[in-house]
Amino acid sequence: MTGAGWLRRLWALKRRQVLLGGPGLGASVRGRCIGDSAVPRLVEEGLRPRLDKFGGLSLQLAQLRSPDSLDCATFRNWLRDSIKQWKAEGHKAIWLHVPILQSRFIAVAAEQGFTFHHAESDSATLTLWLGEGFNKLPHYATHQLGVAGAVLDVNAGKVLVVQDQNKTTNVWKFPGGLSEPGEDIGNTAIREVFEETGIKAEFKSLLCIRQQHRHPGAFGKSDMYIICRLKPSSFNISFCQQECLRCEWMDLAELAKAKDTTPITANVARLLLYGYKEGFDKIDLTMREFPAIYTGLFYKLYHKELPEDYRNITDV
Amino acid sequence: MTGAGWLRRLWALKRRQVLLGGPGLGASVRGRCIGDSAVPRLVEEGLRPRLDKFGGLSLQLAQLRSPDSLDCATFRNWLRDSIKQWKAEGHKAIWLHVPILQSRFIAVAAEQGFTFHHAESDSATLTLWLGEGFNKLPHYATHQLGVAGAVLDVNAGKVLVVQDQNKTTNVWKFPGGLSEPGEDIGNTAIREVFEETGIKAEFKSLLCIRQQHRHPGAFGKSDMYIICRLKPSSFNISFCQQECLRCEWMDLAELAKAKDTTPITANVARLLLYGYKEGFDKIDLTMREFPAIYTGLFYKLYHKELPEDYRNITDV
Repeated sequence: MTGAGWLRRLWALKRRQVLLGGPGLGASVRGRCIGDSAVPRLVEEGLRPRLDKFGGLSLQLAQLRSPDSLDCATFRNWLRDSIKQWKAEGHKAIWLHVPILQSRFIAVAAEQGFTFHHAESDSATLTLWLGEGFNKLPHYATHQLGVAGAVLDVNAGKVLVVQDQNKTTNVWKFPGGLSEPGEDIGNTAIREVFEETGIKAEFKSLLCIRQQHRHPGAFGKSDMYIICRLKPSSFNISFCQQECLRCEWMDLAELAKAKDTTPITANVARLLLYGYKEGFDKIDLTMREFPAIYTGLFYKLYHKELPEDYRNITDV
Repeated sequence: MTGAGWLRRLWALKRRQVLLGGPGLGASVRGRCIGDSAVPRLVEEGLRPRLDKFGGLSLQLAQLRSPDSLDCATFRNWLRDSIKQWKAEGHKAIWLHVPILQSRFIAVAAEQGFTFHHAESDSATLTLWLGEGFNKLPHYATHQLGVAGAVLDVNAGKVLVVQDQNKTTNVWKFPGGLSEPGEDIGNTAIREVFEETGIKAEFKSLLCIRQQHRHPGAFGKSDMYIICRLKPSSFNISFCQQECLRCEWMDLAELAKAKDTTPITANVARLLLYGYKEGFDKIDLTMREFPAIYTGLFYKLYHKELPEDYRNITDV
């Protein structure tokens, strides 16, 4: 059963999402406090365990009115007793959210079996699996995203390539780098190309996706690397000398058979050559934007171009 | 300047990766200890700041011989004085790795400006940017990866679809879920299809990629969602009733024009129909495996099929 599968199962078991609260959370709160009989002190302090959107039980230590006056021993006793009670009540997981300045409570929770789920900026989230079998909680983000831009000047038949500064071997590759949080794939390509080479370009399509696990530099996580086809709107190179040793417009056919390049660059150069000679529709994954059902935001979808009579299909 | 760009810049500045060590790290250690003049106590305790592979200065609190006997006040004074010294020495960033049971030191570090970079299992990593301008350190993983399988029975012209249990609206979609850490895209699709429907299938191709930011359920991070084309090797449905309300082989042409489906499912159904009628080469992103340069591991690369005469190009 996947993490997502477990979430859906828990949702089935807890059909009515119970908002458990009490004084301190505002007028819209209703319901009962979990574990009142075991936790008078911490509830008085403002702490309100609640069933969160993932179906687990969530504790927000930021709710404590006077966190600095809560000593570790009191928290330890409360947590130990509460865990027993929550387990008896059938809760499958506890999520503990700890502000960075209250991190002394993390070690206390770890003694009870909590482990880090994730942390960023000024907060850490820990979890404790109370259910049977292995931990079925959903993981945190598992991939970093790197994007490169293959900027093809179709008039000259040349593509923009760089050699990285300070690498062991000087191989030609497409300019690129890690995406910023919240940045769209095409925008990463455009930004990285500009930062490394000074060339302005526009997004045309996705060309390939590479997945790599245990990627060096990914803090033990996985790497998704996407190469995009870009169309240049400027041609005068002004490359960043801290990042690049060299940068030039190389004949695409030459790059396609070059030896001093990476396997993925050579492969994509050949793909580009195929598209250049026989039509980019043969290689492009074009982008369309759709509204996301649950958020009202938009997302970008990439796939082979769909002919219009299939795109607008209502009757087959 | 991207995070990756900064890393490369720092690499250029620190051309010789200095391993700074001293007693306690083994016979292969050479070099000098940073900040000896300011940090006698902690160095005697085993702590050895070192330039790590990202070019920053790394502190591993796990090196402390007797962490439980180190009080917060001593650590605070040492850290405060060390930061002044390291900044004066020109170091741009400090990475602080804290075992979960020593989390009381996290709050101390936060007082000095450290923030969480990431945390997992029994360790947290914090960072402090000492350089000029904005923080140029590389981010942690930014995307979760969800994969669905569009299992197409080409003989019957039917595709396997499910309706999720306990959703607000009952819409048809392809079975799928979150990838496990280290799991390849195609294997996620195969596993999720089997877990949800009981159908065994094999990977044929990637069909589309969707990127969505601030995805609900992604802990504030982004979501990459990939739909794969699978070929069934079994046909008797035995679906997981905790996860699915319904599961059936639906006529592909019917799904392509169905109203009770998600936009992405309808779009991919039309893509599948196009491929089904006019050749899957029109829609497929096929997979090839390559060796990764730096790790000796392999990675999978997905793109439109490259004709053989382009794949083996040596002379153009």
